[in-house]
Amino acid sequence: MKTQAMVLKAFNQPLYMEDIEIPALEEGQVLVRIAAAGVCGSDVHIWRGEDKRARLPLILGHEGVGYIEDIKGQKYSITGRELNPGDLIIWNRGINCGRCYACQVLKQPSLCQNRYTYGISISCSQPPYLTGCYARHIILDKDTDIIELNPDIDPITMVSASCSGATVAHAFDMSRIKPGDTVVVQGPGPLGMYAVAFARASGAKQIIVIGGSDNRLTICKNLGATMVLDRKSTTVQQRRAAIMEATGGRGAEVVVEAAGYPDAVPEGLDLLAVGGTYLSIGFAQFTGYSTVDFFSQVVYKNARIQGVWVSDTSHLYDAVNLVSQRQEAFKDMITHVLPLESANTALELMASKQALKAVLVP
Amino acid sequence: MKTQAMVLKAFNQPLYMEDIEIPALEEGQVLVRIAAAGVCGSDVHIWRGEDKRARLPLILGHEGVGYIEDIKGQKYSITGRELNPGDLIIWNRGINCGRCYACQVLKQPSLCQNRYTYGISISCSQPPYLTGCYARHIILDKDTDIIELNPDIDPITMVSASCSGATVAHAFDMSRIKPGDTVVVQGPGPLGMYAVAFARASGAKQIIVIGGSDNRLTICKNLGATMVLDRKSTTVQQRRAAIMEATGGRGAEVVVEAAGYPDAVPEGLDLLAVGGTYLSIGFAQFTGYSTVDFFSQVVYKNARIQGVWVSDTSHLYDAVNLVSQRQEAFKDMITHVLPLESANTALELMASKQALKAVLVP
Amino acid sequence: MKTQAMVLKAFNQPLYMEDIEIPALEEGQVLVRIAAAGVCGSDVHIWRGEDKRARLPLILGHEGVGYIEDIKGQKYSITGRELNPGDLIIWNRGINCGRCYACQVLKQPSLCQNRYTYGISISCSQPPYLTGCYARHIILDKDTDIIELNPDIDPITMVSASCSGATVAHAFDMSRIKPGDTVVVQGPGPLGMYAVAFARASGAKQIIVIGGSDNRLTICKNLGATMVLDRKSTTVQQRRAAIMEATGGRGAEVVVEAAGYPDAVPEGLDLLAVGGTYLSIGFAQFTGYSTVDFFSQVVYKNARIQGVWVSDTSHLYDAVNLVSQRQEAFKDMITHVLPLESANTALELMASKQALKAVLVP
Amino acid sequence: MKTQAMVLKAFNQPLYMEDIEIPALEEGQVLVRIAAAGVCGSDVHIWRGEDKRARLPLILGHEGVGYIEDIKGQKYSITGRELNPGDLIIWNRGINCGRCYACQVLKQPSLCQNRYTYGISISCSQPPYLTGCYARHIILDKDTDIIELNPDIDPITMVSASCSGATVAHAFDMSRIKPGDTVVVQGPGPLGMYAVAFARASGAKQIIVIGGSDNRLTICKNLGATMVLDRKSTTVQQRRAAIMEATGGRGAEVVVEAAGYPDAVPEGLDLLAVGGTYLSIGFAQFTGYSTVDFFSQVVYKNARIQGVWVSDTSHLYDAVNLVSQRQEAFKDMITHVLPLESANTALELMASKQALKAVLVP
Repeated sequence: MKTQAMVLKAFNQPLYMEDIEIPALEEGQVLVRIAAAGVCGSDVHIWRGEDKRARLPLILGHEGVGYIEDIKGQKYSITGRELNPGDLIIWNRGINCGRCYACQVLKQPSLCQNRYTYGISISCSQPPYLTGCYARHIILDKDTDIIELNPDIDPITMVSASCSGATVAHAFDMSRIKPGDTVVVQGPGPLGMYAVAFARASGAKQIIVIGGSDNRLTICKNLGATMVLDRKSTTVQQRRAAIMEATGGRGAEVVVEAAGYPDAVPEGLDLLAVGGTYLSIGFAQFTGYSTVDFFSQVVYKNARIQGVWVSDTSHLYDAVNLVSQRQEAFKDMITHVLPLESANTALELMASKQALKAVLVP
Repeated sequence: MKTQAMVLKAFNQPLYMEDIEIPALEEGQVLVRIAAAGVCGSDVHIWRGEDKRARLPLILGHEGVGYIEDIKGQKYSITGRELNPGDLIIWNRGINCGRCYACQVLKQPSLCQNRYTYGISISCSQPPYLTGCYARHIILDKDTDIIELNPDIDPITMVSASCSGATVAHAFDMSRIKPGDTVVVQGPGPLGMYAVAFARASGAKQIIVIGGSDNRLTICKNLGATMVLDRKSTTVQQRRAAIMEATGGRGAEVVVEAAGYPDAVPEGLDLLAVGGTYLSIGFAQFTGYSTVDFFSQVVYKNARIQGVWVSDTSHLYDAVNLVSQRQEAFKDMITHVLPLESANTALELMASKQALKAVLVP
Repeated sequence: MKTQAMVLKAFNQPLYMEDIEIPALEEGQVLVRIAAAGVCGSDVHIWRGEDKRARLPLILGHEGVGYIEDIKGQKYSITGRELNPGDLIIWNRGINCGRCYACQVLKQPSLCQNRYTYGISISCSQPPYLTGCYARHIILDKDTDIIELNPDIDPITMVSASCSGATVAHAFDMSRIKPGDTVVVQGPGPLGMYAVAFARASGAKQIIVIGGSDNRLTICKNLGATMVLDRKSTTVQQRRAAIMEATGGRGAEVVVEAAGYPDAVPEGLDLLAVGGTYLSIGFAQFTGYSTVDFFSQVVYKNARIQGVWVSDTSHLYDAVNLVSQRQEAFKDMITHVLPLESANTALELMASKQALKAVLVP
Repeated sequence: MKTQAMVLKAFNQPLYMEDIEIPALEEGQVLVRIAAAGVCGSDVHIWRGEDKRARLPLILGHEGVGYIEDIKGQKYSITGRELNPGDLIIWNRGINCGRCYACQVLKQPSLCQNRYTYGISISCSQPPYLTGCYARHIILDKDTDIIELNPDIDPITMVSASCSGATVAHAFDMSRIKPGDTVVVQGPGPLGMYAVAFARASGAKQIIVIGGSDNRLTICKNLGATMVLDRKSTTVQQRRAAIMEATGGRGAEVVVEAAGYPDAVPEGLDLLAVGGTYLSIGFAQFTGYSTVDFFSQVVYKNARIQGVWVSDTSHLYDAVNLVSQRQEAFKDMITHVLPLESANTALELMASKQALKAVLVP
């Protein structure tokens, strides 16, 4: 049997639809019919050749939701249910080795030095070929962690949980929100929106978003932001004043950096209350140096800065549970749904920031 | 090539030395020549048929240190060093599946529902046959977590790290010792002795051991106990009075239950300071019900009770590092070293509590 | 100026309304006109003479919300706002010494050995006389921690935050809820209801309540319970089966004991997932011994049992923020509102469990 | 009765010995005869007028150990022992208000906005006048947290616990050391030396110090450093290479910044293992901006940066217990002991870094 995938053969060149023969499954592998494939901001970087993990030729797409078509042998979901053809599933986009220092001593699989990722670091030139989500089918390796979804889940809405959702879950796993806390989010992209949703689910009293797009700030409000500050019409000083006023002069207990540009860091640190936590998620590549006054911005405040790199299966599980509880609210985040054939258009929409989140439906 | 192992064919019957053909290794397997095999208290229970995990015929022995003789393919230690024949190693006695809820969501591999253990839950009736440490060789599965040891490490001393040491490391991983703290240890067996050593390594100010054997209490002193209380010559009230006096009336911040009998629990809870932690490690099987006054022993004290079940690779790593730093002190714990052929004698010495810790040397 | 209070002169005897002269304030004291006084289950025990902290004659009532009438000197709320006459406030019912081991080393003021509580351990026979909330006025000591409330807060709804709410906040402060977690609550009284609300605010996926009163279970549903199990029409085995089914066989990550009877403990421990946490809050006095199989209920499960005693100001702050966010939902909890004169009736309604929560309005 | 103190009347001018009348004690105050007064690096800054907290005229000295001469009323140590004349004591140099957001909600008294410090922010122009340790006597406010010392404690050795010791205790309170961990310390001053001692007391496997003074590095070795790297004879790259080699290529789990210059930060972050913690303690004032590549130094590494500001009583308690356990080792840290009259010389010795730690003995 043949299937189809959009293949990246050369960086900066269009993806081409190709026919690919589905190979016989090996023990533990799962053949999945893709129901929705998310187009991530980092797909744009990969496409441009800016991500050194990429291996060509490549089927892009590390975010997927789909239906099981076939399983070789027995395979269980992480909650222990035996999986069967027809099940709607989502999976951890990364596979960790399970045996290294990060996996076994730190117990932080997201730091596994042997981690590889569907749609990024596995070329489609070798078996099992179907290794990315911009395709009609994907073959999941036996070590893939799978979560079964209720049949009534909308794949298009859920698919973003597998990357932005899980990464933000990782950030919130490393902090702690109390009912009286204020959370500030820098950057209203998919990461920032998940930060709003996790802050709300954690019971934060105030959730304040700083961003430059009216449209995105409006979606943030629907997801739970209690205040939004437009970066285009306010100065750094005005934003700080607004946040200090909203917090009785204390500042925010948690600031989430989901912006990825160096100047966000000093602005964000100045918004922190003493004893606060700065969660930095937004830097997916080097974009310049941040300048920090360690005396007044870190030491004197007893501030904590926590870098957050990708995610593990526990975080995916958190994100899936979060989206499951609020599907309607998350729908707004998906601004563009396109057929698989239009993957190139989807990448352009993401590159130009016209799309907040695009999803391909094969 | 043939090797030899002491095999348990029927519960409560002597182990017999058998010749076993060493099979060809499969990918990732490691053939190890055993340098020291620990005889654990739970081996006595398994031998008697009291542990339902046991699968006959069985090569007992879940504690081992040895030299690599052969590796099929490449294999790395958990710190990322490639392993080679001749390396002295220790390994996690249990193998977790790496994919279940406990492994991936809780990130507590010791709670893996698919965990199996060398010398306990793998019969020697099936490949790779060499699945326990009461033998001249063992074959380690590809998913075994291995730690390389410095060549100057004494295998006889180190071997106890793989079970008692790792389990106590697990307990201390779930608590936190401050420099002014008092730690009370109930039961001066191998678990209790490791608790003394971990308490000392964590910087505890006072370490008090309650036990019934002069000899064992003396070893505890050498390992770092600052006070010992003989259960045979004191009453519960006298011990409590002594501990309250030593702590200015506050009680102990941490009490480690390493005794395994039900009455230890209420005695131990009464020794806790408000806000203190009771680490329960000693119960390897049902020995009766404990009677607890939740109002005054738990709620009013804001006490925490933490059950501790087996261990994972991070805990083995902790224990290995602890023993490496203090080899001389740990030597006292090994009261009997016997040749492999004397495994039955070793079990009897452990059963009668004549031996604190027996080690077999093939 | 005179005010009035309901005074307990002898245990088990009716409270009498008395006229009391309001004394001149000392530096830092705050005179408050009570807007709502909560009648707590423990008031019944105090009234009966079952709480050894009680000092007669006593103005009962440790739960209060009111308006500032006068302040001697300057006084700030814990968020740093200067307080003024007319402000609507709530306060920590207990005052800790701030200098003892619990206060300064453990940083757990709820364990302060010098803690005293309005309406319980301060007799009205000595200045400042007005030391309980069953009164038209109370005088708050200079060391009282005060939180200002928005003027639109309903005092009758908010008043329960000061005792049950804060105590449950303490419990949740000592645990951690993830979006996929199941929380089981034993006992649908005010503590249990707050547990439902905190579990929901923490983002729990499933919240299951076990109780014996249809009416109370219905209120729990309105507060966020996803399943309720009637203790009168189900057996322990049936309840366990229902919870295991709801959790895919794993059990609950967190079980909150808010029942206070000894048999709740073994039932609750059997409902825990491996690695789970049992939060015990319900025991306000000795009601019998609990029987625990430490091997299978604690050690083998790697379970944590956390006793929770009263609360501190941080917990009150959490509870106030929680109730502020969901005033409507909490209104149902207040089943009886009576005038101050009817304090005796209110105590009877609480004693007979006809009232879930009674509030006195002077 | 009169006593004497060295008084700072104008910044950058010599301190003058003055006779001061000891006032009658108020309720709760404690008159202490100073046995040893530490000269802190920050005293030099205060003397120069670089610390805006300073209030002239000022008796410098926030580090003190002494004997109680008189107490007005009853006063208890933080462990609950009643204090008496003749007792040898140490005390928290700072006094927190106990009622603000930091004190009661964050439970981090070191962040109290109303905190004031003996020898820094209390002028000697107002009662009780004796407010610094460069004196024969000090009067401790009733809210001072006091720890009693064994009579055999050497005041000269112990005095550094009250500032550097407690601050480093604070840092280690916010991290967690495991037996296999490597701790790197940047800067071998008193803070760095305490970091070595705390790392050793926490059981770290390797402790590596980077510094520019042979003499100081030698003292670090005596305190427990396993490797020292001379900043004068090595490059940043060489130091990184040495640390990577010592850690099997992983880097250090914890890096302690005790240097206070901006370039230490990027060097330190590059020494961190993935998932590691950077504890920043050394910045006592603004010394320039640090330049950080958030992508590769923070996010990609999942690194945590924790600023550490001063300390609270729990940290002083930790430091006192640490020094008590290892008095001999800490003696080396005190390079200069001078009579009170030589306070100006002591400040010069500290300013020129000739002294590592100077102590005044009245």
